[in-house]
Amino acid sequence: MKYVFTFGGGSAEGKAADKNLLGGKGANLAEMCLLGISVPAGFTISTECCAAYYKNGARLPEELYKQVPAALKKTEKIMNMKYGDPKNPLLVSCRSGARSSMPGMMDTVLNVGLCSATIPGLIAKTKNPRFVWDSYRRLIMMYADVVMEKAEGREPALGKGIRKILDDRLDEMKRSRGYMSDIELNADDLKALSDDFKGLVKKHIGKPFPDDPMEQLWGAIAAVFKSWNGKKAVSYRRIEGIPDDWGTAVNVQAMVFGNMGDTSATGVAFTRDPATGDNKFYGEWLPNAQGEDVVAGIRTPSPINDDTKNEQNKHLISLQQAMPQIYKELNDIRTKLEKNYADMLDIEFTIQENKLWMLQCRVGKRTGVAALNMALDMLKEKLIDEKTAVLRVAPNQLVELLYPIIDPKAEKDAIPIVRGLPAGPGAASGALVFTAEDAVASARAGKSCILVREETNPEDVEGMRAAAGILTARGGMTSHAALVARGWGKCCIVGAGDLQVNTKTKTARINNSNVVLKEGDTVTLNGTRGNVYLGTLPMMDATQNPRFRQFMKLADKFRTMGVRTNADTPEDAGKARAFGAEGIGLLRTEHMFYGEGSDKPLFYLRKMILSNTTEERKAALDELFPYVKDSLKGTLEAMEGLPVTIRLLDPPLHEFVPQGAQKQAQLAESLKISPEEIRKRGEELNETNPMMGHRGVRLGITYPEITEMWVRAIFEAAIELKKAGKKCIPEIMVPVTCDIAEIEKTKEITERIYREVLKKFKLKKLEYKYGTMIEIPRAALLSDRIAKTCEFFSFGTNDLTQMTFGFSRDDIGAFMHDYLEKKILPADPFQTIDVDGVGELIRLSVERGRKTRPDLKIGICGEHGGDPASVEFCHKTGLTYVSCSPFRVPIARLAAAQAAIKAEK
Amino acid sequence: MKYVFTFGGGSAEGKAADKNLLGGKGANLAEMCLLGISVPAGFTISTECCAAYYKNGARLPEELYKQVPAALKKTEKIMNMKYGDPKNPLLVSCRSGARSSMPGMMDTVLNVGLCSATIPGLIAKTKNPRFVWDSYRRLIMMYADVVMEKAEGREPALGKGIRKILDDRLDEMKRSRGYMSDIELNADDLKALSDDFKGLVKKHIGKPFPDDPMEQLWGAIAAVFKSWNGKKAVSYRRIEGIPDDWGTAVNVQAMVFGNMGDTSATGVAFTRDPATGDNKFYGEWLPNAQGEDVVAGIRTPSPINDDTKNEQNKHLISLQQAMPQIYKELNDIRTKLEKNYADMLDIEFTIQENKLWMLQCRVGKRTGVAALNMALDMLKEKLIDEKTAVLRVAPNQLVELLYPIIDPKAEKDAIPIVRGLPAGPGAASGALVFTAEDAVASARAGKSCILVREETNPEDVEGMRAAAGILTARGGMTSHAALVARGWGKCCIVGAGDLQVNTKTKTARINNSNVVLKEGDTVTLNGTRGNVYLGTLPMMDATQNPRFRQFMKLADKFRTMGVRTNADTPEDAGKARAFGAEGIGLLRTEHMFYGEGSDKPLFYLRKMILSNTTEERKAALDELFPYVKDSLKGTLEAMEGLPVTIRLLDPPLHEFVPQGAQKQAQLAESLKISPEEIRKRGEELNETNPMMGHRGVRLGITYPEITEMWVRAIFEAAIELKKAGKKCIPEIMVPVTCDIAEIEKTKEITERIYREVLKKFKLKKLEYKYGTMIEIPRAALLSDRIAKTCEFFSFGTNDLTQMTFGFSRDDIGAFMHDYLEKKILPADPFQTIDVDGVGELIRLSVERGRKTRPDLKIGICGEHGGDPASVEFCHKTGLTYVSCSPFRVPIARLAAAQAAIKAEK
Repeated sequence: MKYVFTFGGGSAEGKAADKNLLGGKGANLAEMCLLGISVPAGFTISTECCAAYYKNGARLPEELYKQVPAALKKTEKIMNMKYGDPKNPLLVSCRSGARSSMPGMMDTVLNVGLCSATIPGLIAKTKNPRFVWDSYRRLIMMYADVVMEKAEGREPALGKGIRKILDDRLDEMKRSRGYMSDIELNADDLKALSDDFKGLVKKHIGKPFPDDPMEQLWGAIAAVFKSWNGKKAVSYRRIEGIPDDWGTAVNVQAMVFGNMGDTSATGVAFTRDPATGDNKFYGEWLPNAQGEDVVAGIRTPSPINDDTKNEQNKHLISLQQAMPQIYKELNDIRTKLEKNYADMLDIEFTIQENKLWMLQCRVGKRTGVAALNMALDMLKEKLIDEKTAVLRVAPNQLVELLYPIIDPKAEKDAIPIVRGLPAGPGAASGALVFTAEDAVASARAGKSCILVREETNPEDVEGMRAAAGILTARGGMTSHAALVARGWGKCCIVGAGDLQVNTKTKTARINNSNVVLKEGDTVTLNGTRGNVYLGTLPMMDATQNPRFRQFMKLADKFRTMGVRTNADTPEDAGKARAFGAEGIGLLRTEHMFYGEGSDKPLFYLRKMILSNTTEERKAALDELFPYVKDSLKGTLEAMEGLPVTIRLLDPPLHEFVPQGAQKQAQLAESLKISPEEIRKRGEELNETNPMMGHRGVRLGITYPEITEMWVRAIFEAAIELKKAGKKCIPEIMVPVTCDIAEIEKTKEITERIYREVLKKFKLKKLEYKYGTMIEIPRAALLSDRIAKTCEFFSFGTNDLTQMTFGFSRDDIGAFMHDYLEKKILPADPFQTIDVDGVGELIRLSVERGRKTRPDLKIGICGEHGGDPASVEFCHKTGLTYVSCSPFRVPIARLAAAQAAIKAEK
Repeated sequence: MKYVFTFGGGSAEGKAADKNLLGGKGANLAEMCLLGISVPAGFTISTECCAAYYKNGARLPEELYKQVPAALKKTEKIMNMKYGDPKNPLLVSCRSGARSSMPGMMDTVLNVGLCSATIPGLIAKTKNPRFVWDSYRRLIMMYADVVMEKAEGREPALGKGIRKILDDRLDEMKRSRGYMSDIELNADDLKALSDDFKGLVKKHIGKPFPDDPMEQLWGAIAAVFKSWNGKKAVSYRRIEGIPDDWGTAVNVQAMVFGNMGDTSATGVAFTRDPATGDNKFYGEWLPNAQGEDVVAGIRTPSPINDDTKNEQNKHLISLQQAMPQIYKELNDIRTKLEKNYADMLDIEFTIQENKLWMLQCRVGKRTGVAALNMALDMLKEKLIDEKTAVLRVAPNQLVELLYPIIDPKAEKDAIPIVRGLPAGPGAASGALVFTAEDAVASARAGKSCILVREETNPEDVEGMRAAAGILTARGGMTSHAALVARGWGKCCIVGAGDLQVNTKTKTARINNSNVVLKEGDTVTLNGTRGNVYLGTLPMMDATQNPRFRQFMKLADKFRTMGVRTNADTPEDAGKARAFGAEGIGLLRTEHMFYGEGSDKPLFYLRKMILSNTTEERKAALDELFPYVKDSLKGTLEAMEGLPVTIRLLDPPLHEFVPQGAQKQAQLAESLKISPEEIRKRGEELNETNPMMGHRGVRLGITYPEITEMWVRAIFEAAIELKKAGKKCIPEIMVPVTCDIAEIEKTKEITERIYREVLKKFKLKKLEYKYGTMIEIPRAALLSDRIAKTCEFFSFGTNDLTQMTFGFSRDDIGAFMHDYLEKKILPADPFQTIDVDGVGELIRLSVERGRKTRPDLKIGICGEHGGDPASVEFCHKTGLTYVSCSPFRVPIARLAAAQAAIKAEK
């Protein structure tokens, strides 16, 4: 089995297309070599080796012990150095590299190969003892942390690991010497520090720091594989939906050094602006530094060119200014790469003593705004075709474009309390929190919050996800916070240098001002400009963006599946229409009994529920009728000309009986019955498993008069609008169907009422459809027979998921966490459709339903209708439309378009 | 469309095989004609006409108005009389006749055609004015009730209808004349009564009694069709599972009269004893009477022969004695019919002036005991083959044979307080109730009761079903009570003449004794002997019956599917083994936490539930371990040599947390924690839909230590028994599975513990199987993949039905009644498997599971395992075995054998 693939010196054993085998980083390193770009030589250990490693009980496979030395020899030859050689030692880096980028989630070890045997030779060769000792102390820090502690399964409490101990020792030395920054440490300091470090490692880990270069290398390789299953990486994969069995590759590559003095530097760049999509070379660099200094966000880096300088960094010297020749070379590489990849790339480079080395290139993360702009730009530049352009924006990225921005009028007069880098677009406001835990707690409590950190690290990921916006005092546009926030399209401001964050007291002082922000204070972020305002500023919709409209039009060109909305009110219907909804797929009539203005209809509904006889019940329904009719009329009118699917009464009646003695007493008084009677009826209606109780069509079977009234209200509302010259297409939808007879009985009622209403209004015809939800497994199985009576199906995937899994959505809190944590399920089936089980029922239902009625209209109205993966499934399964909340209509439109394009391929 | 089919005079337009079209009665009348047996001529209006009638909005179809007069003409010709003729008038009966017998459930009208025009002619012809006027007053009574009241939709409150009014008038006349019985009424009395009756009909119904013969006939035909949907008939069909769309035929037949003096008589008989199966001609007759007098049980009839006389009727004159020639003729017919039908028949006959007429023959209802005995006897007589013999006993009839009988030792010394006819076999004891309503209420309260009535009528059906036993003061072996009870295999004694029942005071006095029985007094019935005892006598098992064993052996010869039992204790396991169970299909380990002896294990279980850490939980599980092991050991031992499927912990944990402050305080004290903590934990565990909550394998995913302990207990129990020389075959069954990963995780644990236990006991191997319940729809759909890990499946059809329908079994009370009443569902899916939905999932699962693992063992352990229709479904679907409660094991064995025989055909 070949596990090791070499690259360097203008050739490579792999290419960009080999991502699955070599990981993204390895494949792209190979590709750059093939493009003639200068890349330090090295080799990639494949992802298959990672799988073999885990299969082998977390031990490296036998073959590796021959293949790695052979590849190392090749690298030595190209780089003209020798690993472990006392005179001309080659040092290497060991980096992870999965199929899909997981920034900062796995471990890296640099400077591998430095040891007592090679240090003198390297000093002699570089004539830079400070550089060598600095590299050595960095190696010890990383290696002790990653290889000796974490990879060995020692995961000490946060802040108690060996890394912290060594960091503290470093700070102590700086303090004792009176230094402000690391740069002031001289060679002797660093040598002493290295000795100290080795002692501390021995003491705390119980083993000496390895002095044999090969031992170092094998340890580093295994540690990278191990980090694939580290807590951070697993958590990130969960959020991103990356499968656990992909594994990571390990890239062993000759080290080049950006920290060899003023002719050396390191940097990262994007071939276009990842925040806006502007076609500008955009990046940051640090002279005399190693790459980790940029990525970690510890030092605020400089811009690479003058073009992209901003308020915060305009005083810093750009690479273009400092090393114009190298900048030109880099800019040429940028052009070459974009042409080759036909996409925006994220690159890393190091300049070692005036020689430019490319360390990495990969397709760059971008905001939704940037993704959309770049897609349209590259289409215009003829770099990509229309279909590719549509595929370039992840449907969920559109959310950003729909995010509110601060009302420009209001912002004009507002003065920022502090400024930072615009790392994630859109606007967000909320109460300040100072820890990831607090952010999670706040989100759970349903409260919008802004997470403030000195800088973020991978441990903060969950909190960053929970927060409405992120604000950091340190770090650049490529810092951890910026990368992660951009990946999610989350509003984020980084590097707000005037902010002095104190996590202990949960306060943040602002330099040169009297403002001290405390936990709970409200702020508003403009992530597109980097401004932070005190208080809550008014927001506004961003959908009028002409490029957004252009892009959606392009997407619709390829879309074949319809997109409707779930909406219960004229407001929601209007919003959804503006977002491109082609009708309502689910109108829940019971919305009118909740919230504002529901007092009166709720009163009559309760009166109906508490009736003792059919006559009483009918009388109460008569009183309720005008409210239901008017409520429906409003929404039907808002959707004029488009179909509106109206679901008959769905919830179990006990949901409407007030709980608590006081409320019951009030109701009793207004109904002129005894509170006891209300209590008793409430108890009678109470159910052990209400989800599978007396609800939906079952209510109408027991009390046909309820169905009669509802159907009458639908027809009369539609006819009144018709008489007013407005075309309405009501679709009557029966919920919770499990048998043919239920929908037949209900259809009899519907047709009878239809005739009665036509007669009353002296009309001949009204266009309407009759159909059912498919949300009970039995209904899915009996679809061939149900389709005889129904003109349309709509999958209620929330309930269908509940019944198919036997998961009560209200109760899964007790175990869903374990199920995801222990990888029993790949995803929460209430968020993304379960293709294997629920999906199988849907497939069966579609197949059987269409067998009976080839033109059966089939939709989905569960919450999955707005989830891109689920939308793709729906397209594949041949659904007529999906229906989702108004806000997710554009996402569903794009997802449907992409599904159509992918299916074509 | 031909709706009318004639018979009579040695030929017929139908035959026995035409039951679906002509109903049982009509087809058999035709068959008797073809056999040359003397049958009054007539015609049958088909069941298709009944369907047409209902389709036509409850109006007779047009064709009938030609076909009936034509058929009537044919009848007139054969009988040599003329309908409506003043001189030689033909009278006819109109009787219902469905495919399957529904005794007393539909209406009949006799003497149709008597009117002012025909009465004088009939008097002249018969020279028997008393007979004619008696027939006329009977016609008015029946017609007014059936045609003019009930068929017109007038259903007055019980005892307030026209029938009661006329009955009262009859009693009044008898009283005023000082008569003791109807026979004393003379011609003038009856003529006067008829006039009175007509007046009362006019007054109470508002219409005159029709005097036109054709009007009478059409009215009677329509009324019979109408009675198909009468309350009684619908209720009976529900219980018996007869489809509503079968409809009834109407048999219009020339009247012959058993009430034309001493040379006339009427009777009913069975070709063999329907209670015991003895090969004896068995019947009852009444001289000078019409058939309804026998069936209604108003007069206690005489035995037809000397052979079958008993204690109660030995003083009466048998037909054999009174009319030896006719008896011989009847006995020949008996032989001819049994040979033709190869079955026991129930016949009705009338003797009119020394001429024998057969009015009906049909396959006779019988007790389970009789069915079994006759099947074995007829097999021996070579009337039927083995397969037919097995098919002759309905599986549910076996229940009777399993019913306890009174311990013979105890009964030897007991003296009956009263005696009656042994109408339903077995024994029953319970508290006396005097109305059907009280019987239903008592059954609902879970209390065994004996229903005592003067005589029963169709209104009592629900109460008879609810009672453990039935006791009546009047009526013979073919009375309503006897027929219905025998059909159900219910313990019943009829015609206990010394019993004076007073329904008003709810007491029963016993003649010639001081005993007065009151409501609530306990009595014991021996339905096989007709004895009633005071108090509760000890009962014993009846399964040692050698004929039962012979029959079951015969059934097993054809059975291909296995039968196991659901048993949790050594006692149940032993009982099931005696009944022929071939293993345990479901052992619920949690049984040990309920009922007697559960204090200690329940305490440790609760301790486990209330643990705050894994360590605490493990410690509590260690304490619980020996109890679980010992509990399993007992049942495994009782099933030595046979497989025992043990289900891991299934219920949600909150079921075990006590409710109520006092109980919580007690537990808190013994656990040395605060009651508040218990209350809180209980609340945390509480679920909105517990059926779909944190239970089954989900518990083991969250707390693997629970699974570990349970699996360890199973292995250690089995190994300890193995060491003691007892072979046990445990099968570990995972409940509530919905995904592959769940059973894989659990299997990992199982295999690890297996290795640990083997090591501990220094053993190399223990035979065991690993499998899962299929009770969640998703598991059924994923069966191909689940079968990779599982060696067996067991369908938990209770839960599977819940999820497939979305019916919570605890909550269906609110609507299941409506669903059955309104015919949304044909049957309660929790009683008989829903073949369309649940069955479809089972079929899919079997197909997919066997595709992966052709030898996959598949069983069913829901309550359907003991339901014959469901067992047949299981056989058809290829299941390996069914598992049911111990008591239903023989029923499942027989049902499985019958399914195999039917499938062969």
